[in-house]
Amino acid sequence: MAEMPVFVLVRPQMGENIGSAARAMWNFGLDRMRLVSPRDGWPNSRATALASGAGRVLDGAELHESVAEAVGDCTTVYATTARSRDLTKPVLTPAEAMADARARVASGERVAVMFGPERAGLENEDVARATHIITVPVNPEFFSLNLAQAVLLNAYEWGREEMPQGQSLDAPAASVIEVEKLADRYEQSLEDAGFFFPPEKAQGMKVVLRNMWSRLGLTRGDVQMLHGALKQLMRGKS
Amino acid sequence: MAEMPVFVLVRPQMGENIGSAARAMWNFGLDRMRLVSPRDGWPNSRATALASGAGRVLDGAELHESVAEAVGDCTTVYATTARSRDLTKPVLTPAEAMADARARVASGERVAVMFGPERAGLENEDVARATHIITVPVNPEFFSLNLAQAVLLNAYEWGREEMPQGQSLDAPAASVIEVEKLADRYEQSLEDAGFFFPPEKAQGMKVVLRNMWSRLGLTRGDVQMLHGALKQLMRGKS
Repeated sequence: MAEMPVFVLVRPQMGENIGSAARAMWNFGLDRMRLVSPRDGWPNSRATALASGAGRVLDGAELHESVAEAVGDCTTVYATTARSRDLTKPVLTPAEAMADARARVASGERVAVMFGPERAGLENEDVARATHIITVPVNPEFFSLNLAQAVLLNAYEWGREEMPQGQSLDAPAASVIEVEKLADRYEQSLEDAGFFFPPEKAQGMKVVLRNMWSRLGLTRGDVQMLHGALKQLMRGKS
Repeated sequence: MAEMPVFVLVRPQMGENIGSAARAMWNFGLDRMRLVSPRDGWPNSRATALASGAGRVLDGAELHESVAEAVGDCTTVYATTARSRDLTKPVLTPAEAMADARARVASGERVAVMFGPERAGLENEDVARATHIITVPVNPEFFSLNLAQAVLLNAYEWGREEMPQGQSLDAPAASVIEVEKLADRYEQSLEDAGFFFPPEKAQGMKVVLRNMWSRLGLTRGDVQMLHGALKQLMRGKS
């Protein structure tokens, strides 16, 4: 399960692109794909046709209804975006990200790389669930990578033989779902306490807060402690 | 003329692929294309349609009748091939080749990278005119890169050192003293709430919590938000 990254296609539109992405992955030995709500349902005959030779990637693809579910068991999640967002997360090149992923996978982590729908790319709420952003360093005047090409460049970097860089924490990292439950609980408590004010700013504040939780690289122990702290802080409050 | 490599498409078949190759190049600032005997003539409306946004690459493309003519003014010529041939030439990865090309271009050489027709790839006679071979290191069980993808990987490697690279977080990091004040305030609130229990474990728990705050890489914005969250959580509590 943990020997390679999972590539997650979020709300992909055309079956052809899913098939091409599968081929791009399998060129570099990657065969773990997850799909979040593909527009035209699943399985998809156009995807199968275009995947020729890489059908095993589609055969093993997992279907999920939400990003949260698709990356829930992963501890590190990279979101690919065309341009940097105002979300405060480390921004890596594919080379940096895949070197980082190799080191994490080697130490037993489960990592995922998310790719958005063809036209619009990932929504901010999707990116908020990631721990890192991947942006391909391109011509500032021109960005035009299609879905399969974005997949290709990351798969290529995964396949590149390189010494692992960076190091991870000794303590086991919290999974996305554990961080999400923590974030849910803080959000609810803060909602009850009237923190998200004024109302027109509430949604933006929530995204900023979600983004912070997922960026911090919390360990499982941190999550437990933060649950305990909140519980204790709330005790005796009406 | 000599500041970047020329990408030479040899006997390309589909106009769409010429357009896609132009887009792939321009993502990484490359706009010098040469075409050798494109099957459907030149100019090609399908190429123009697919190149959208990268039309300048096609506008400047030079048409040639033979490989010999197309690379005649170059001193170093790389031939991309799917598998190694029995031709005795140095075989490089795209990364190695583009690093080599950069050094040569910097010293005033003219370099070209040749790409073969979609199905068959370059003929041995074409490869014979090259000084080096480029082969993408792929899954030994599976090779499936189309023309635009082969162009993309080489253009990406060319751009690797030319394009702005990834950046770390651009939000200002909180200072040690700001994190310490935050930690003090949470510790005091948790102390008041009876979190540090039993007493013999209190000191150890405080150290773990301090350690967490300083490890998280909080930004100044995070610190402000966490102050605000605590204040709001405590409001109305006796």
